[in-house]
Amino acid sequence: MPNLSFDTASGEQCFEDYVPGSVRTFGTILVKEEEIIEFARRYDPQVFHTDPVAARKTVYGGLVASGWHTAAMAMRLIVEHYLSRTASVGSPGVDELRWLKPVRPGDELSVRLSVLEARRSESKPDRGVVRSLVEVLNQDRAVVMSFKGVNILLCRDY
Amino acid sequence: MPNLSFDTASGEQCFEDYVPGSVRTFGTILVKEEEIIEFARRYDPQVFHTDPVAARKTVYGGLVASGWHTAAMAMRLIVEHYLSRTASVGSPGVDELRWLKPVRPGDELSVRLSVLEARRSESKPDRGVVRSLVEVLNQDRAVVMSFKGVNILLCRDY
Repeated sequence: MPNLSFDTASGEQCFEDYVPGSVRTFGTILVKEEEIIEFARRYDPQVFHTDPVAARKTVYGGLVASGWHTAAMAMRLIVEHYLSRTASVGSPGVDELRWLKPVRPGDELSVRLSVLEARRSESKPDRGVVRSLVEVLNQDRAVVMSFKGVNILLCRDY
Repeated sequence: MPNLSFDTASGEQCFEDYVPGSVRTFGTILVKEEEIIEFARRYDPQVFHTDPVAARKTVYGGLVASGWHTAAMAMRLIVEHYLSRTASVGSPGVDELRWLKPVRPGDELSVRLSVLEARRSESKPDRGVVRSLVEVLNQDRAVVMSFKGVNILLCRDY
C-alpha cells in the first residue's frame, strides 16, 4: 500500500490528504523504567506497573507499562507524525482497544497507521471523518497494542 | 441496582465478588490546569490541551484535557476503588471508548461502574472475566467519557 503523501514536517495537511489504503510507520519512542513507574504511581498504581521487584512475582514476571501509558506514548507519536496541526479538531473516541503484549523498560515503540475510511461530513460540510487502524509495534515488530481511531479534520476545499 | 458489596478499603476481593447488575459510583478527582498541560506536553501536544490562551480560538473555546488523560484519571479511581489488589491480573482491552464532553480545569470527575457480565474462564479455571461499563461523570453528573472494560480476576474458590 502507498505511504501517505503528506510532509509530516509541515503539519498543514487537511482532510483531503488522508487517503484510504495508505499506511505509514513512524517513531520510535523509548520506554523508560522511571517513566513507567512515574505514570503508574499517578494514574495506575498496580504493583506490576510500580514496583520492579514485586512485579517479578506477578504473572508478568517483571515491570510492565500501564496500558494507558502505552496509549499515551502512541498518541505522542501520532500527534508528532500524523495529525494535522491546523485541521485536526479532535476525536469522538476509539474502538477495539487491545493490549496484546507486555510493554517493558527498554522497549522501543513505533506506530503503524492505516487509513481505513475517509468520509466527508453531511451535517458539517467543512470537515470530514477519518477512520484508521493504529498498531503500536515494539523493536521486534510485534504488535503490542492496537485500536481503531476516529479523527475529525477540516477540509481544504471549503 | 444493588451496590457492589465488597469493602473497597480491603482490596482483597476476588472474581466471585464482582456481581453482574451491581453499580458503584466513586471518586472524585479534581482536574487541574497545570496537570492538563503537563500531561499534554508529554503525550498529546495539541494546542487545545497545552495553551490556555491559544485554546480559546479553537472549537473548544478553552483548555480541555487530553482524552487519554481523562482515561488515565479514571483509571486512578478504578484502581483505588474497584480493582482487587490481590486478584486483578490485568486487562486485554476496552471497547467503545467515547469522549462525550470536554473536560476542563476545575472539573471534578467521578466514576460510575456497572458490572455487565462475570464469566469463569473455561481454559484457565483459576480465573474469570468481568465485563463492565465505565462512565466518567463531571460535577454536573454529565457523562464526559465512557467505555466498556474487561478485567481478569483470580477466583477465591480454586
